[in-house]
Amino acid sequence: MALTKKPVTGMKDIMPNEMEIRDYCISVIKKTYAEFGFQGIETPCVENIENLTSKSGGDNEKLIFKILKRGEKLRIDEAKTEADLVDGGLRYDLTVPLVRYFSNHENDLPMPFKALQMGNVWRADRPQKGRYRQFMQCDIDIIGEPTNLAEIELILATTTTLGRLGFKGFQIRINERRILKAMARYAGFDEARFDEVFITLDKMDKIGVDGVRSELVENGFSPEGVARYTDLFEKMNAAQDKLAFLEAELSGVIEDDVIPALRETIETVEATKSADFEMVFDPTIVRGMSYYTGTIFEIAMPELGISCGGGGRYDGMVGKFTGKDVPACGFSIGFERIILIMLENGFEIPGKSKKTAYLLEKNLPTQRLMEAIMKAQKAREEGQDVLVVRMNKNKKFQKQNLEQQGYTSFEEFYARPAE
Amino acid sequence: MALTKKPVTGMKDIMPNEMEIRDYCISVIKKTYAEFGFQGIETPCVENIENLTSKSGGDNEKLIFKILKRGEKLRIDEAKTEADLVDGGLRYDLTVPLVRYFSNHENDLPMPFKALQMGNVWRADRPQKGRYRQFMQCDIDIIGEPTNLAEIELILATTTTLGRLGFKGFQIRINERRILKAMARYAGFDEARFDEVFITLDKMDKIGVDGVRSELVENGFSPEGVARYTDLFEKMNAAQDKLAFLEAELSGVIEDDVIPALRETIETVEATKSADFEMVFDPTIVRGMSYYTGTIFEIAMPELGISCGGGGRYDGMVGKFTGKDVPACGFSIGFERIILIMLENGFEIPGKSKKTAYLLEKNLPTQRLMEAIMKAQKAREEGQDVLVVRMNKNKKFQKQNLEQQGYTSFEEFYARPAE
Repeated sequence: MALTKKPVTGMKDIMPNEMEIRDYCISVIKKTYAEFGFQGIETPCVENIENLTSKSGGDNEKLIFKILKRGEKLRIDEAKTEADLVDGGLRYDLTVPLVRYFSNHENDLPMPFKALQMGNVWRADRPQKGRYRQFMQCDIDIIGEPTNLAEIELILATTTTLGRLGFKGFQIRINERRILKAMARYAGFDEARFDEVFITLDKMDKIGVDGVRSELVENGFSPEGVARYTDLFEKMNAAQDKLAFLEAELSGVIEDDVIPALRETIETVEATKSADFEMVFDPTIVRGMSYYTGTIFEIAMPELGISCGGGGRYDGMVGKFTGKDVPACGFSIGFERIILIMLENGFEIPGKSKKTAYLLEKNLPTQRLMEAIMKAQKAREEGQDVLVVRMNKNKKFQKQNLEQQGYTSFEEFYARPAE
Repeated sequence: MALTKKPVTGMKDIMPNEMEIRDYCISVIKKTYAEFGFQGIETPCVENIENLTSKSGGDNEKLIFKILKRGEKLRIDEAKTEADLVDGGLRYDLTVPLVRYFSNHENDLPMPFKALQMGNVWRADRPQKGRYRQFMQCDIDIIGEPTNLAEIELILATTTTLGRLGFKGFQIRINERRILKAMARYAGFDEARFDEVFITLDKMDKIGVDGVRSELVENGFSPEGVARYTDLFEKMNAAQDKLAFLEAELSGVIEDDVIPALRETIETVEATKSADFEMVFDPTIVRGMSYYTGTIFEIAMPELGISCGGGGRYDGMVGKFTGKDVPACGFSIGFERIILIMLENGFEIPGKSKKTAYLLEKNLPTQRLMEAIMKAQKAREEGQDVLVVRMNKNKKFQKQNLEQQGYTSFEEFYARPAE
């Protein structure tokens, strides 16, 4: 059978110029997160299929690349369903593996545990431009910290990193699942149908408050409840201080400490931030994953109209593995989007080494070859990048190509030293 | 179904202390290889199953983790064999993907192309101590350089890297597939059975020349031929200069330029090396992969009795994709073994940042919280690692634990400033 030159459908080869930017980003991310006390960890790319299909992954569970059983365990004749054929799958995110990892190694890890993970994940999404079936995720998580110190540190670490990568003028939009729920409760909606309400609410930025109102009514929610719900948003938007308004209005349908803690998070980040961004309370932020239990947040790049990452608190998930609830909160940078923006903006990596190319005449005697290599070795020890290549017949063209690759100086070596 | 805390069989979670060493190694490797003009690239972890089963992977093709087809393409009822069920697999090495990549992007890449790849590969080997089913490979390859300049640069780059990671007193053992073949031809063996001869020869270090002699005779090779073969090794070992002896003795059964080029490689590396190691010509080195066509080499750590990587020239492989032969040569560091040795030796990462922990009393007023975080932010900007955590009831125990994690100084923040 003929060999295929293309990568598999929906996945991509990474070219050297992109790889250089990726490596630079990874080094800035690792260095910055280390300053905040995050420790790198890694889990296998393959997870047990049971862990991947435990309803923690939402719709991503439909997109799993599954791994065929091997040897005697594979019985094609007897197989009725996919479940009979597979025993593992490629992870679709880094959160499920992190929680498994923490459960497995709890006794050997500090508490709270601050983890940094950078790794590929896989989703068999319909292929589309700029979206790939293998992509890098970059997550930080704090497990074991119940207070908003977790949120504050996660947001500061992530925004400091973005700032060092040259991003500015962005927003961290923040909300609280418990505020979302309290607002729905205030409207009198049935608790069992909250998720439906939030799916509609999530479209607020596209369809406006009128759109939300009519969609909810269409979906069978009582017009009185819907009016009470959308009125609450409209009154809040007119208020000087949205959080103060909600704190008064939602009194009795929300725990007393929720809004003050959120306010403290926003104010503390604003007072101590080192990057150029603003904190924005946005009660229409929903975020898809059902495992979130508290704060939820997103990075918004208003000029680009896109989100470049997000996260939130998921206090119940560790308990699914260990039977014992442990608080947890995480923030994920949309690594691939960040890279795309940097590439589009022609990002220049600061402090790059000088690049020199040595052109060696063909059939150089051993002694001359040694001299050229020795000189290259010395320059490398001094931190220079030195490429040693054979000289082409068309030397001028060769040099032009090397200049395009960033080589700024050249040296030529001939069989006989120049006189 | 219950969730599994353990990673999948044969794969491992990486703990923070190991991750720190891995990250350090990766940064040294990337920096050093860049100095030699290698460019980072990446290919997807999943490859088309046809590419993985094209006989370029030797026995590794039996160890592939295969990916189930998805959607309508998966027809469990009609499936007779594995091939009906799968369309992809996890790569078992980085060489097959590199050659596919080069074939796909040839027009956009410099020539010669010097590639650095660091990435995971997967093999469904029988699980055993210290050997995992997912492991990192670290390969450099030069595509398009026919002369021994490729070998010289590959060996210098790899050994410079090992030297910077603290390794010394090791060997690069080198051989040539064409010398291997010429010696077998000299003995009069049937060319079709050369690979069988080499499998036995490969055991020389374990069973000695007598063992090789009797195994070859047992396997049906003529006693005269076997005697001629082992005599050649014995005479060579007695010679002052092994290569000079072989050059004279093999005259007529080997191309004239093979041994002089190998000698030049060895001598040039010896004259220009920057790490503490020696080049050793070893005509018993075989290396398993059938795709090698020229020089083959291994990193030997004599004190440990193990090989920590290897490589060689594989001039025919690109042609399997493009129909046009392009010379290629590569060198792979045994990344996992290197890490294992560094961990066992208690490797200390040079130039680590100072680590400080701030302990915050619970229920600190917002103003005091801001002061603590602000101070942490300033220290981080100065390059310090600052962990901000809530103070435990047992503060002494908490500090002891933090000291074990490398925190050397502490600061405490209370609701009321100390008087």
